[in-house]
Formats: sequence, structure tokens, C-alpha cells
Amino acid sequence: MILEGKMLIGQSAIHGSRDPIHAIDPASNERLSPAYPGGTEADVERACELAWAAFDHFRETSPEARAHFLETIAEEIEAIGDALIERAMLESGLPRARLEGERGRTCGQLRLFARVVRDGEWLDVRIDPALPERQPLPRVDLRQRHIGLGPVTVFGASNFPLAFSVAGGDTASALAAGCPVIVKAHSAHPGTSELVGRAVQRAVAKCELPEGVFSLLYGSGREVGQALVADPRIKAVGFTGSRSGGTALMKTAQNRPEPIPVYAEMSSINPVFLLPEALKARGTALGEAFVASLTMGAGQFCTNPGLVIAIDGPELDAFVAAAGEAIKVAAAQTMLTPGIFEAYESGVSGFSASDKATEVARGLRGEGPNQCQAGLFTVRAADFLADEALQAEIFGSTSLVVKCADLDEVKSVAEHLEGQLTATLQMDDGDLDVARKLLPILERRAGRVMANGWPTGVEVCDAMVHGGPFPATSDPRSTSVGTAAIQRFLRPVCYQDLPDALLPTALKHDNPLSLRRLVNGQRES
Amino acid sequence: MILEGKMLIGQSAIHGSRDPIHAIDPASNERLSPAYPGGTEADVERACELAWAAFDHFRETSPEARAHFLETIAEEIEAIGDALIERAMLESGLPRARLEGERGRTCGQLRLFARVVRDGEWLDVRIDPALPERQPLPRVDLRQRHIGLGPVTVFGASNFPLAFSVAGGDTASALAAGCPVIVKAHSAHPGTSELVGRAVQRAVAKCELPEGVFSLLYGSGREVGQALVADPRIKAVGFTGSRSGGTALMKTAQNRPEPIPVYAEMSSINPVFLLPEALKARGTALGEAFVASLTMGAGQFCTNPGLVIAIDGPELDAFVAAAGEAIKVAAAQTMLTPGIFEAYESGVSGFSASDKATEVARGLRGEGPNQCQAGLFTVRAADFLADEALQAEIFGSTSLVVKCADLDEVKSVAEHLEGQLTATLQMDDGDLDVARKLLPILERRAGRVMANGWPTGVEVCDAMVHGGPFPATSDPRSTSVGTAAIQRFLRPVCYQDLPDALLPTALKHDNPLSLRRLVNGQRES
Repeated sequence: MILEGKMLIGQSAIHGSRDPIHAIDPASNERLSPAYPGGTEADVERACELAWAAFDHFRETSPEARAHFLETIAEEIEAIGDALIERAMLESGLPRARLEGERGRTCGQLRLFARVVRDGEWLDVRIDPALPERQPLPRVDLRQRHIGLGPVTVFGASNFPLAFSVAGGDTASALAAGCPVIVKAHSAHPGTSELVGRAVQRAVAKCELPEGVFSLLYGSGREVGQALVADPRIKAVGFTGSRSGGTALMKTAQNRPEPIPVYAEMSSINPVFLLPEALKARGTALGEAFVASLTMGAGQFCTNPGLVIAIDGPELDAFVAAAGEAIKVAAAQTMLTPGIFEAYESGVSGFSASDKATEVARGLRGEGPNQCQAGLFTVRAADFLADEALQAEIFGSTSLVVKCADLDEVKSVAEHLEGQLTATLQMDDGDLDVARKLLPILERRAGRVMANGWPTGVEVCDAMVHGGPFPATSDPRSTSVGTAAIQRFLRPVCYQDLPDALLPTALKHDNPLSLRRLVNGQRES
Repeated sequence: MILEGKMLIGQSAIHGSRDPIHAIDPASNERLSPAYPGGTEADVERACELAWAAFDHFRETSPEARAHFLETIAEEIEAIGDALIERAMLESGLPRARLEGERGRTCGQLRLFARVVRDGEWLDVRIDPALPERQPLPRVDLRQRHIGLGPVTVFGASNFPLAFSVAGGDTASALAAGCPVIVKAHSAHPGTSELVGRAVQRAVAKCELPEGVFSLLYGSGREVGQALVADPRIKAVGFTGSRSGGTALMKTAQNRPEPIPVYAEMSSINPVFLLPEALKARGTALGEAFVASLTMGAGQFCTNPGLVIAIDGPELDAFVAAAGEAIKVAAAQTMLTPGIFEAYESGVSGFSASDKATEVARGLRGEGPNQCQAGLFTVRAADFLADEALQAEIFGSTSLVVKCADLDEVKSVAEHLEGQLTATLQMDDGDLDVARKLLPILERRAGRVMANGWPTGVEVCDAMVHGGPFPATSDPRSTSVGTAAIQRFLRPVCYQDLPDALLPTALKHDNPLSLRRLVNGQRES
């Protein structure tokens, strides 16, 4: 597998002609070969042209053909073998086991969407047959299905170089929906992106799909990404990254002559509520388990627990003491990029400099560059409520414990939070009444509410919601992980009195796809 | 039923203190009593405060309780009796039969959503039970349901003073989703709004719901509406009206600290394609049927056929001649408001003044004020393609016939169109191949594609899509008519490892609501 530093536009591999990106090994700050020159306006134009040309064909491929395509992508990714893991390790600083697991998740995700496509529930077929005798007016024949929105731009995420990048969750769900995808590669892992991009490119060819179903572009600044989002042929955007990046894309999308949906997963501090009985019974154990979640993967997860909320007292002191001890011996870990490391340092400095936040402990200092030193701080609830800046996400292994005077103050803090991906209750049986009071607030604030677990670790399944009110995501009606993610890229179309020969296969009278349709308000079994 | 000119804020009836609205009888331009003074910031604040306070309770009402509430609203509207029809006739200029039909549709719609709420599919319950033995990692218990987004602001539409106003489709679907509703009454029919608003208010009281579930505000300018959309407690907006009004609301919603979805149904010219064989076989009949659709209700429907597209030739000439004859004898009809009449006149003047559009015929001139004189114009496709202004919606009974040189030009015109609510094919068996070429374009451009009907007349059912790409609506993933409209006001929430006692009823282990859940990827029957 020789990396060529080329963009993939349909079935072509092309050198860009703008400022090149170089991946950097964050463990050494060494620049990695090859260079990845950025795309031009003409490259964006060509990718969009091909995607548009491919759309009508691709969205009408049969469920079986589309599922087979997704499975072929998974096979092609697996066929890259260890070269993919090694390059991803170099570019991300992430350890082998993590990346092997992530590759499994990526391919599992593609295969899960293959199942979803075959099942056909995403088509949401609804049929209200003609009632020619109805009084006072007859009813026409009305049939609804869903079709893809159109070509989708996906932005690779830095923290999941496989599972949320070139062939990650956004791409898999958009392709499953019948939408061609143009990926803007994340500049932190262009080599990993090229390897995976070529796997998708091969799958397109093997499945004899129009080449425009997939393209992969590079760009060092925001130009290529913004040009893609502004292009009239792009009909939706998937993004995982910073709040500033996500809101910039939202603005571009909204200012188009035809505004389009942006699914940006941006910012979440994932509050953990320690309820009184649980804190009393197992404060020390909770402190240790909390730090294990906080420091996993150098805290570089969207669902990292950046905030802990509890009633002040000796029980909380015990939790903080145990967590502080665990933090002190937490090993430093290489972060994904020098930029992420700098942002982390700056965020922690903000806590250190604040006269409101008190440092409990810092983790071990690293030897090499870009090493995340864990941190734990505390703050009084009144101070937290008075300072919005203390709610800003610090991407990495630092968390803030909010000490509340009583349950009312816990509720005030909960109500005060911005939208979150997750909210966690640490609770025992005796906490049930308190939990009942908090639950309605947490449901309004978060996409996933959990008890006695930790928010890191996001299962890819039907019931998952990796979403939540702004700024956790730009669209609280959506999830970017799990099978419901396909719904982001679909829209309903109704067909009235079309002759059977003209109806899409999913809607034909004899139900050739054996779909479970809603007919006359009744669900077919 | 004595109208008091009061806003309804929760269970209170309150006089506003800003510039009053007066309804105007468009048939006479006479001002109708009473005056409806507009709401203040304090009124908006109070309505939002009550709605927010009601939300957590209302969204957890049982499906049965919520369905009963919707049915009670329908009963209370019916109980108003003829006073409602008479006031609506006065305020809208619409005839009795139309408004009686519209009342039936409004109440039928509320009852349809009651069925939807009871069915429970809107909850989209998905369960992935714990797999404690799974390797390499166990799976936690994950359960998903949908909850309401939060309080919703609904803007009444002028052209459906019952079915898309105070207790119309937006309100019915938002309430069905568990969202409190604050209606900004349309200034054209405040009396009708008060009558229906009091019916909803009575239903809230009868069903012993928190008073904030429903409020009704008036305002002469955009202030009250904009203040509602900007309020942080409002989480979604339903609107049917002009493109300028809808896009202004979109902008406000997007510029909030927490952007929210706006469902605006705005602008559509509903192209009708006359395919060659159909045109040859029945051009004259098509021309007459077309004018019947065009002039229905003075053309004041979102789905009015404002554009006809066909290949030029003697067959099209026959269609145009027949349509022109029908237009010439089309009676003038009173339009909804002086403002709508003025906008119509201005739009038609634009056609008349254009050196591109040619007048075929005008309808009968009316005697009284605000009377819509029908119109038919033709334009060459090349000229149509060169002038975006010819695509602007003219709300009323005027349509434009686009004469194309050949099928390629028909396709070019189709591709050139903005997003539409509907697209219509007039076709015979011999047109199937042509229809197959057009269908993919029309699916991309419209929410509903029909054959051999006319776009006016929108069935309220499961399969209906009254939506489409911008500017037909602000969100092509949605429909504002039909049962799928409920999905606009819902968001998914995932519950992880919650004790059964804490789980929402819909997700409890023994399935007390008997929902058809997705469990382990399998649909329960």
C-alpha cells in the first residue's frame, strides 16, 4: 500500500494543487510523508458534478444492491490489513488495540446499515388506496416512500480516524440512504483517509456503481469544506468536530439560496450527577471509576465526563479525594494533534487561572510532546451558575466537580446546562425519588440518559442516540450513531394515482420488496 | 358567542395593549368588530412561561389522555356551531360550503392525530437489551423513545382559517407530539381565532391539563411573532404563509443562541406537465379541467397550478384555446384580504408588463372590492429559463403556460424549477417512457408527484406529503399535512441501564402500552 497523496474524485486519483497537508506524528511532532496538496475549486466542482450525476441512479439501486455495496466497503477496508492500523497509529497517536477495535466498529457499522437497508423500514412506506365511492369526495390513491436528500458532504472527525471519518458513521448512513458522499478528509490523518478512500473507491467499481457515488478531497484551510457546503448540488452535511467549525458550516448552509440541513455533532461536557445514597454507599469506588472514564483515550471522546454535580459534604469529599488520588497517578497520553493539545492546555489554564475553580489534582506530566496531563477541579455551584465560561468543553482528560448546597441547587445546575450528548445518574435504590425529579430536566437537556455507567463508550445499535439539543448537535431531532442516523439523509415523497408501471418498486401494488407497509392506517405484518 | 377581542393566555382572557387589529370583510372592505389589541412583551413572556411550566407534565400524559384531549378540542369546535362558520365567512370571504368542509377537515384532522397518538408508532420504541456475556465487551441495556421538542409557536395561515390556523394541522400535530402550543393568530381572522381558541382553552380545562398547554396571541406587526420565535423556551415553529415571512422567521430561529427548527410552508407554483399523448388525446378536456383547478377558491391554495409545461404545437394550442375560453367566463371571486388582492394584482401586472409573457385571456372582472380576476399567460421556455422572476408565486387564479421546443427543453424547465409542493403529469399509456424520464427530476423537486389529477385538494392521511424542497418548505424532510407531520415536533432520547421504576412507561420491560417495539433489531408484531 503506497500512499500517493492524491485526492479521489470518482474513479480518478488526482494530485491537488493548493497548499499541501502533512500528517504529523503527535508522539514525535515529526512530519509524515507524503504531502497531500489541497483541492481547488475545479476539484470541488468535478466531485459535485459526478455526485449529482450519480444520484438518480444510486438512490434507485435495490436494497440488496446497496446493502451489498456497504458490505463490500467493509471487506475492502479489512483487506487493507495492518497497513491501515499502522498508518492510523502514526497519524493519531492512538494505540493499536484501540484502532483495531475501531476498525471492527467501522466495518460492523457498515454491515449494520446493510441490514437496515435490506429491512426497508427506512422507506416508511405508507399507502392510502383510492376510495372512489367515498362521500362527499372520493379519495385518490396515495403512496409515500422516502428517498435520499441528494449528495452529502461528510467531514472526517479527528478523534475517530476510522469510525467517524472517511467510511465512518456519517458516510455509512448517507450511502445507506442512497446519497452519494463527498468526504472532506480531516487534515490530521490524510494517509488513513487515502487508504480507506481507496477501499471505498474499489467497492464502487466492484459494485459497478456510478463513480460519483464517492469522492475524497483534501484542503488545508476551510476553503474546500466551505465550497462543498455552498455547492447547490450538495443537499446535506455531516460533521463531527468543534463548536466553531460546526457553527461556521451551519451559517454557510443557511445562507445558501436553498438552505440545507447540517448535522454537526459539536460540544458536550456530559454531566454526571452523583445522587446522595450512591455517593454515601460508594463514593470512593465512584471516584476511581470516574477517573477511568475521564482518562480513557486521553479524554478525547465527545462523551467524556467533563462535569460532575453533587451535594457538598463529607460524602462528596470522599469522592473527590479518591478521584484526586486516581488523577495523580494517571499516565500522560499523547493527544491526537498538536492543535488539540494546545486547545487542551489553554482550557486547563483557564480553570487554573480562574478564582472560582480550585485545582484538586493534576495527572502525571508526560515526557514527549502533545501529552495530555489529566486534571480535576472543583467549583461552587453559585460560581458555576454565574460564569458561562466554566461550561465550555475542554476536549481532554479534565473535569470539574460542581458542589451544590442542596437538591434545589443540583436542579438549578441541571437546568442551567446547555444541550448535552449524555447525562449520567449515579444512583442507588434510595435515590429513586431524587432521580425522578431530575429525569425530566435531563431528558430535555440530553440525547442519552444513563444510570450507573459512564458516558464514554457509544454502542452502535438501533436504540442509540448520539445527539442532543444545541450545542451538542445542530439538530436535536437526529442521532449520528446507530441505525436511526439514516433518517438524517432522507425525505418523504408522495405519489398520487401513478400507474403501477411508473411507481417505484417499493410502492408497487404487489409489494415486490415484501415491505411492512402502513396500509389504510394499519401496519402489515 | 360574544367576541371579546381578548388574547387567551393559559386559562385567562386578556386585553392586549398595543395597536389593535380589526378584521376586514373583504367582500365590502368593512371593518369588523371587535378590535383585537396586540400583545406586549409581557404577554409573550407570560405565555412562554406557562407553556414551559406545562411541558414536562403534558409530554408525559398517556397516549389515551392526549388522544382524548385532541378529540375534546374537536368536540368543542363543533359545539361552537354556526357562529364559527358565519364569522369565518365574514372574515375570509370564503363561501359557507367551503368553510363547513374545512371545519370537518379540521376536526377530522384532530381525530386522526388522536388515532396516531394511541397507535404509538410515533414513539419509535427501540430496545437493545443488555448482553452481559458479549465479547470483547458486554452491551448495556439501551432503550429509545421520542419526546416532544418543547413548546411550539404556530402561525395561523390566512387561506385556511380553520384547517391551518388556531387548531389546524400544525397545532394538532404539535399537541399530539406532547408540545404545548402558543398560536400567533393571523390578523385576517381574529374573531374566528378567538372562537376556536376558546374551544381549545375549554378542552384544556375539561381535560384538567396545565393551562400553559395552549395560548393565543394577537399582534399587528411582526413583533409578537418574532418575540415568540426568539424566546428560549420555544423549541420549534410551524408556519404557513409567504416566502418573505417564512424566511424572516428562519433567520430569527437560526440566530438564537440555541437555533431551533422552523417548519415554514411558503411558496410553490406546482408545475403541471402535459405529456404528448395525453395532450393529443384530450387537450381540450385538460384545458377545461385545468381552469377548474386554477380558479377553485380564487386560486388561494398552496397547491394551485401556477405553471403548465408542454411541447409547443397544435395540440398545446388546443389546450391553451380551451383553457382561455374557460378563463374568459371564470367568475371573479372575493380574495381573502385586501393585501392578498393587492399582491395578486401586482403579480399579474408583472406578467402583463413583461415582454416575455403573452396574455391569453383574463377572467370576468368583479363588481365589488378585492375580486380576483383569473388570468392565463404563455411564455417561451427559453424566456422562462432566462428570467427567475417568472417563477415567482402569484397567489391567486393566474397561471403561465411554458411552451417548449422538445422533450429536452421540458426536462430543462423541470430541472430549472425551485422546490415545489407538487408536480403533476397529465399522461396516457403512450407517455410512459416520457414520464419515466421526468419522474426522477420531479421527485427531486417536489414533495408529491401525481398523474392525471390536479394538485388542489390535499388529503389528510398517512401517505400525504405536503412539503418539498426549499422554498416550498424550509425543511424538505417534513410534511405539514398528514400524520407524518407529528414527526416535526419530536426528538429521540436513549435510556441506558435505567431501573425499570425510573423508565418512561413506553420503555418499561413489560410493555404496558402494548407498543410494537424494535427489539434486538426485530420488529415485534
